[in-house]
Amino acid sequence: MKASIITIGDEILIGQIVDTNSSWIAQQLNLAGIWVHQMLSVGDEEAAIQQALRDGLADADLLVFTGGLGPTKDDITARTFADFFECPLVFDAATYDHICRFFERLGRTAGEAHRRQCFLPEKAILLPNSMGTAPGMWFDHQGKVVVSLPGVPYEMKSLMEKEVLPRLRQKFNIQAVVHRTILTAGEGESRIAERLEVFENELPPFVKLAYLPNLGQVRLRLSAKGNDLQLVQQVVQDKTQELINIIPDLVFGFDQETLETVLGQLLLDNNLSLVTAESCTGGRISHTLTSVPGSSAYFKGALVAYSNELKVNHLGVSAQTLAQHGAVSEATVVEMVKGALHAYQSDLAIAVSGIAGPGGGTPEKPVGTIWVAVGNQHYVATQKLQLGKDRMLNIKFTTTFALNMARQFVVKHYPASQP
Amino acid sequence: MKASIITIGDEILIGQIVDTNSSWIAQQLNLAGIWVHQMLSVGDEEAAIQQALRDGLADADLLVFTGGLGPTKDDITARTFADFFECPLVFDAATYDHICRFFERLGRTAGEAHRRQCFLPEKAILLPNSMGTAPGMWFDHQGKVVVSLPGVPYEMKSLMEKEVLPRLRQKFNIQAVVHRTILTAGEGESRIAERLEVFENELPPFVKLAYLPNLGQVRLRLSAKGNDLQLVQQVVQDKTQELINIIPDLVFGFDQETLETVLGQLLLDNNLSLVTAESCTGGRISHTLTSVPGSSAYFKGALVAYSNELKVNHLGVSAQTLAQHGAVSEATVVEMVKGALHAYQSDLAIAVSGIAGPGGGTPEKPVGTIWVAVGNQHYVATQKLQLGKDRMLNIKFTTTFALNMARQFVVKHYPASQP
Repeated sequence: MKASIITIGDEILIGQIVDTNSSWIAQQLNLAGIWVHQMLSVGDEEAAIQQALRDGLADADLLVFTGGLGPTKDDITARTFADFFECPLVFDAATYDHICRFFERLGRTAGEAHRRQCFLPEKAILLPNSMGTAPGMWFDHQGKVVVSLPGVPYEMKSLMEKEVLPRLRQKFNIQAVVHRTILTAGEGESRIAERLEVFENELPPFVKLAYLPNLGQVRLRLSAKGNDLQLVQQVVQDKTQELINIIPDLVFGFDQETLETVLGQLLLDNNLSLVTAESCTGGRISHTLTSVPGSSAYFKGALVAYSNELKVNHLGVSAQTLAQHGAVSEATVVEMVKGALHAYQSDLAIAVSGIAGPGGGTPEKPVGTIWVAVGNQHYVATQKLQLGKDRMLNIKFTTTFALNMARQFVVKHYPASQP
Repeated sequence: MKASIITIGDEILIGQIVDTNSSWIAQQLNLAGIWVHQMLSVGDEEAAIQQALRDGLADADLLVFTGGLGPTKDDITARTFADFFECPLVFDAATYDHICRFFERLGRTAGEAHRRQCFLPEKAILLPNSMGTAPGMWFDHQGKVVVSLPGVPYEMKSLMEKEVLPRLRQKFNIQAVVHRTILTAGEGESRIAERLEVFENELPPFVKLAYLPNLGQVRLRLSAKGNDLQLVQQVVQDKTQELINIIPDLVFGFDQETLETVLGQLLLDNNLSLVTAESCTGGRISHTLTSVPGSSAYFKGALVAYSNELKVNHLGVSAQTLAQHGAVSEATVVEMVKGALHAYQSDLAIAVSGIAGPGGGTPEKPVGTIWVAVGNQHYVATQKLQLGKDRMLNIKFTTTFALNMARQFVVKHYPASQP
């Protein structure tokens, strides 16, 4: 079963708002086993909506429209649908009654624009909208279905969940689709693809593998489709395990997890505290760690030592080390780790020092030279990165790298994190 | 001139990622005076890409594709384009050379997948991608243009700005469009709209004002279109000055400036140093300040005191203050400012303490209660915020608020920043 999602609204075409509705609807349809084969955004124009209806019904079994409903006069969706399905607009008293009561609860009264909004295509099955004024519309058309929903996200979601999805499940006999996303860090897309080449070539035709790279991380998505849900689930589970066995060193989590949530859980499991001592990342690692709710249970804080003075006075980096090796050196990040562990009484510390750019490079230490260290009282692991010239990319990549290095350090040195 | 934006990628159709590329491209094309009449997302499938090319070229003068380029074998875009434009795929040595050097800088070597990626349609003008491996492609086709860009946002943006937009301006005779964005902080969209109502109503019909609100800031964009570039520029300049005169208290900069660049320049002009002492913002203010190249000239560092222990031991907040007023209080942020000024020998300090959420609230101090302070040796300004329950929104809004408060503090207390 094929579906197409169509968004109506000039505000999307001028880039004023990002369409997040389509993505959410696609997730819901996929989970219901309905394949979304395209998404389309068109303007508030009769001809564009007509064409979307015509082309959409030629290709797909289900069209889900959002937007273009509501009290303002540039909303022409209802009229266009009535024309397309060759039926009149008729006044729906129940909708008007709902709108009047809706405004009453807000201490306001419905206006003329809201009355106009109640003239709806006669062939539409109206879907009651408990969160707003415009009802959804459902059209049965030659064995296919066209649905039109308001563009306000919470109204749309409520209508999808309460009205549209139950009706779709009832009407169509739907194939099962199962997805699993495996999260990796530490290697680029192409190196992973090389290691997975045989695995990928031997996947059954109803299972697909996709690569989703992003700044030091690659998400691997396994998807399978079939009539037997249990079988499909089993295949995805087996293939996920096979995949992990090929690249166990790279996999850090699944689906909605992140490096910072996974690392946080490892710290909790091992009852460990963490601090960061950051130079060129400027607090980005600390910010990323503290974006997780509840992170105060394991994260004590950070010193962003942007000046050498702070490195010496507050992290105990020796002036001699700075003079001999420079602030961007293995010796400096090791002393930063030790100083941070001591100053902030933490079990673990991450330290970073580097040249984020675009200025500040030298022939020996060009822009993008960055040292990262992770350590506890007994061990300090260090790593040198040689990145590019883009400041923000360097900061973000280094943040990912440092978090992954901390994760590996905990897995290696603390038994509670062993599987 | 009509354009269509087409995104290729299964990850969008299953709702795994939200397509933000199309919105950004639409903004850029609109600013260049090109009308985007539709956006489309299709899967990684030859037939779907072919149909998008066919339908797109029937309707529009310009097609901008993103996604579907890269080293993994599920990328079939280059092959499909070669078929559509009836030309062979040929090996491009310059692209391969670029990829090899790209990986060299990362201390890695290009693999077989990258070599395969260098077979590109013979009719494509290749657009060099300084941020990644896959070049952009430009096709001239019967007076129309088809562009294909990688889907990684920063690679796509760099190619649009450096290659695609300049070529479009050169190729098509586009009406002069002049934009000026006035940046404000400190008031919401509707309050600003009230103060600008008369101004807006009296704008000539070829000048438009748009409100672009974003987390504590509102960008006001004046746009004018016309055949006489000089006249259009003059009108935008005059209207910009008129607008500033109505809301001088809210305007902090223009166009590509940001609160952090404007504040940085004020600190430089006054030869001032700055540190931050952050609790609930977790390093976000420090990260934002250090995202500016050259910020080490005025930013000395930050202490993220996520635990009370760090507030007491490293910022000198008294245990009595914490016991009596709590960590989220005016007294605490004032002591954090004073402690940070002293500990890090800085001219100015910003301090923040609050409950970012979603947990941790109490009836007296619900989630979203946040205290901000900015001060020097003589004065400390404080402000209480009462925000919502969303952790990331609270962190981002507070960061903007604190930076604007620091800007206002410098403007008020240091004469070199007076106009």
